[in-house]
Amino acid sequence: MQSRTQNLKERVYRANLLLKQNNLITLTWGNVSEMDRESGLIAIKPSGVDYDAMTANDIVITDLDGKVIEGHLRPSSDLDTHLELYKSFTDIKAVVHTHSRWATIFAQAGKEIPMLGTTHADTFYGDVPCTRKMTADEIAGDYEKETGTVIVERFQALDPVAIPGVIVHSHGPFTWGKDAYDAVKHAIVLEEVAMMAWHTLTLNSEAHFQQELADKHYFRKHGANAYYGQGERE
Amino acid sequence: MQSRTQNLKERVYRANLLLKQNNLITLTWGNVSEMDRESGLIAIKPSGVDYDAMTANDIVITDLDGKVIEGHLRPSSDLDTHLELYKSFTDIKAVVHTHSRWATIFAQAGKEIPMLGTTHADTFYGDVPCTRKMTADEIAGDYEKETGTVIVERFQALDPVAIPGVIVHSHGPFTWGKDAYDAVKHAIVLEEVAMMAWHTLTLNSEAHFQQELADKHYFRKHGANAYYGQGERE
Amino acid sequence: MQSRTQNLKERVYRANLLLKQNNLITLTWGNVSEMDRESGLIAIKPSGVDYDAMTANDIVITDLDGKVIEGHLRPSSDLDTHLELYKSFTDIKAVVHTHSRWATIFAQAGKEIPMLGTTHADTFYGDVPCTRKMTADEIAGDYEKETGTVIVERFQALDPVAIPGVIVHSHGPFTWGKDAYDAVKHAIVLEEVAMMAWHTLTLNSEAHFQQELADKHYFRKHGANAYYGQGERE
Amino acid sequence: MQSRTQNLKERVYRANLLLKQNNLITLTWGNVSEMDRESGLIAIKPSGVDYDAMTANDIVITDLDGKVIEGHLRPSSDLDTHLELYKSFTDIKAVVHTHSRWATIFAQAGKEIPMLGTTHADTFYGDVPCTRKMTADEIAGDYEKETGTVIVERFQALDPVAIPGVIVHSHGPFTWGKDAYDAVKHAIVLEEVAMMAWHTLTLNSEAHFQQELADKHYFRKHGANAYYGQGERE
Repeated sequence: MQSRTQNLKERVYRANLLLKQNNLITLTWGNVSEMDRESGLIAIKPSGVDYDAMTANDIVITDLDGKVIEGHLRPSSDLDTHLELYKSFTDIKAVVHTHSRWATIFAQAGKEIPMLGTTHADTFYGDVPCTRKMTADEIAGDYEKETGTVIVERFQALDPVAIPGVIVHSHGPFTWGKDAYDAVKHAIVLEEVAMMAWHTLTLNSEAHFQQELADKHYFRKHGANAYYGQGERE
Repeated sequence: MQSRTQNLKERVYRANLLLKQNNLITLTWGNVSEMDRESGLIAIKPSGVDYDAMTANDIVITDLDGKVIEGHLRPSSDLDTHLELYKSFTDIKAVVHTHSRWATIFAQAGKEIPMLGTTHADTFYGDVPCTRKMTADEIAGDYEKETGTVIVERFQALDPVAIPGVIVHSHGPFTWGKDAYDAVKHAIVLEEVAMMAWHTLTLNSEAHFQQELADKHYFRKHGANAYYGQGERE
Repeated sequence: MQSRTQNLKERVYRANLLLKQNNLITLTWGNVSEMDRESGLIAIKPSGVDYDAMTANDIVITDLDGKVIEGHLRPSSDLDTHLELYKSFTDIKAVVHTHSRWATIFAQAGKEIPMLGTTHADTFYGDVPCTRKMTADEIAGDYEKETGTVIVERFQALDPVAIPGVIVHSHGPFTWGKDAYDAVKHAIVLEEVAMMAWHTLTLNSEAHFQQELADKHYFRKHGANAYYGQGERE
Repeated sequence: MQSRTQNLKERVYRANLLLKQNNLITLTWGNVSEMDRESGLIAIKPSGVDYDAMTANDIVITDLDGKVIEGHLRPSSDLDTHLELYKSFTDIKAVVHTHSRWATIFAQAGKEIPMLGTTHADTFYGDVPCTRKMTADEIAGDYEKETGTVIVERFQALDPVAIPGVIVHSHGPFTWGKDAYDAVKHAIVLEEVAMMAWHTLTLNSEAHFQQELADKHYFRKHGANAYYGQGERE
């Protein structure tokens, strides 16, 4: 098992660095976790540690109740949000949280990111939703867990695999995926489409995207009939 | 012929890297091709391959029907769009496609990029046009080929050499040129003028460019009386 | 004492470089100082010296009256503003001034930076205030000292520890903290939240942040019940 | 004289690279010249040469009539504009032209860059003016020379030392200074204040700057009573 958690730590460590390299991180904001669905163990970034100083060994291993199994540091304070997502979205194996600028701007405005082009539809099959405001009780209570709860609530009628990300109202984005790299990739795309949506709406408030194009672009990259890429990973 | 296709691959490989170095590429989005008009062969980026991992040997050689002649990877899924452009625009020898931010914003807004200054006129002799929306049949049919068809349709009354680029509605930009480097250069300029047009229109919705200046700037760089540069390539 | 001022110089030198590395500095604009509250000595950047050419030995040591104690160069022309802040805000030990783009845009617009999300509330517990315009007498008189005076006046009903920064009308931001690194960190966050506030307001002029979220986020990072980070420094 | 022109070439070469390093240059756009007022010789960037490939030896030496004295390449096509400025603004010794994004946006909008803060007033003592549109005759005639003429015309009631730059309508910025480095520095500041002015006006269309602050900031850096910096160069 040691080598298995070691592998998980290495992957989460590298994924955290990728966030930084893609300019999605200011200071220590943001975190990546990945879950090994077989063992039920989760690797997550430690809380408030500099990306430059962090090593793979600083990554914390917890179980699905948030109990620390391995590690000398406290896990990210957002751990409980990640855990809620792993419990409810059983097809995902990684979660990313950032305060990336453009996605956070939509969060602060309390607006979803509309699907306005093929760049969006290639990755997100529909508008990226925004959660409702949390109640005073939810905020005063088990806040990080409740953050996960409102995300899950928002996806009651949505497929988290087809729309692998969300905007948390007044806060920022969470994305997820089939592994840490996949969830980071979704965070990169989310930031890019948020930036372009902002400027598209300002240039043409009537901008509208055809559903046929959304279908075409999403399904040429995803599912049984996909023909983009080299046939393994997207 | 081997050394000839090898040379083509090297050129297309380097041109793809130039796109990345000029910040026009996110993840694996975008592709460059170049056509050898004598042999009728085309070199194009493989589909969905990381720019950092790609080598010149990964570049795919096809004929004008899209049949793979050399290469161990699938060609870019946009190949059929490139082929349509080579068939109709017989003076061009290279095509570039990106999802660069500012040009894509105009695509999503469904608006052409207006010629508003000498920076634009130095390279594009007129507004950069935007294609019409594609029909449901075109999207459901041979989509990538039809993307090329609507571009060619949009240029019925335009000269693709004088205006070496287009905005595909809801999608993003295509540019072209006399070789891969030239087409990449046009992609760089398109992004630059799109960014500036967006902010010019927001600052002054009445902004207007004199046709005399367009003529002066375009023809001091292009054609028999050009006097910009060192007398060989622009 | 020599080694003590040497240490202060090193810290201020490194903090100045951090400003540059975080893209908050154009040319020679901006400065950092730190005060040793025990000895009453202040280390500050010299005036108009290039960041690339500067060494730790160029940092100037003064007392709280602005008298140069060590150093072969003139101190920053903003020294007197720093001194006013040290005199009135007795809990702070470092001051940073920049002309960082987004914070300066709010300064030029004469507007405070509204608290619109958790990113803001994690560091600034309330809107970042903007000073009043200075009078002609204040400008013609002891200008740099008076700049400090209007900042202090603006904080009469505010806690400079809970809101560690300000926008000086028509000029730019000042931030402060418990040491030079802390004050630099606040300058980085200020720029980030200013950029996001600008775009949030443009996207949704009705954007509003819940006080409950401000309380939750500020106090999970600050004060006796903080649980973010590793328990030492934030 | 050889060593004197060699020195001039080196300075102009390094100043051109500085433009590139400060992100003011796309492709080969932009140029720097410096004039030795004693010998009457001018060093200027060659036309259309890549910044990365250029060496100090590629810099062209001309006289005030534009006759090439030394050099194996054609001088910048904008040479005649530079010459007009040297002839009329007898206190300047260097000229810079770029298509930097934000200054060019103002040029395309046909608007001057308003003085809205101390960052602007530290370098430009007043709004940065925009030239009138050129007539069809001026464009069809000696265009580059006439570009210089409309700049000089715009400065009839302005001091080119106090306002070391201009926006050429529909085109882009020119700046100047006491040497090549000084002119480059003014190009950097112009871009910065243009970016901030754009966003200030959008945030607060009533933004207004006090003349007293302009006086204070300009004269603490310039003239007999300046006290910013170390007493030699700014």
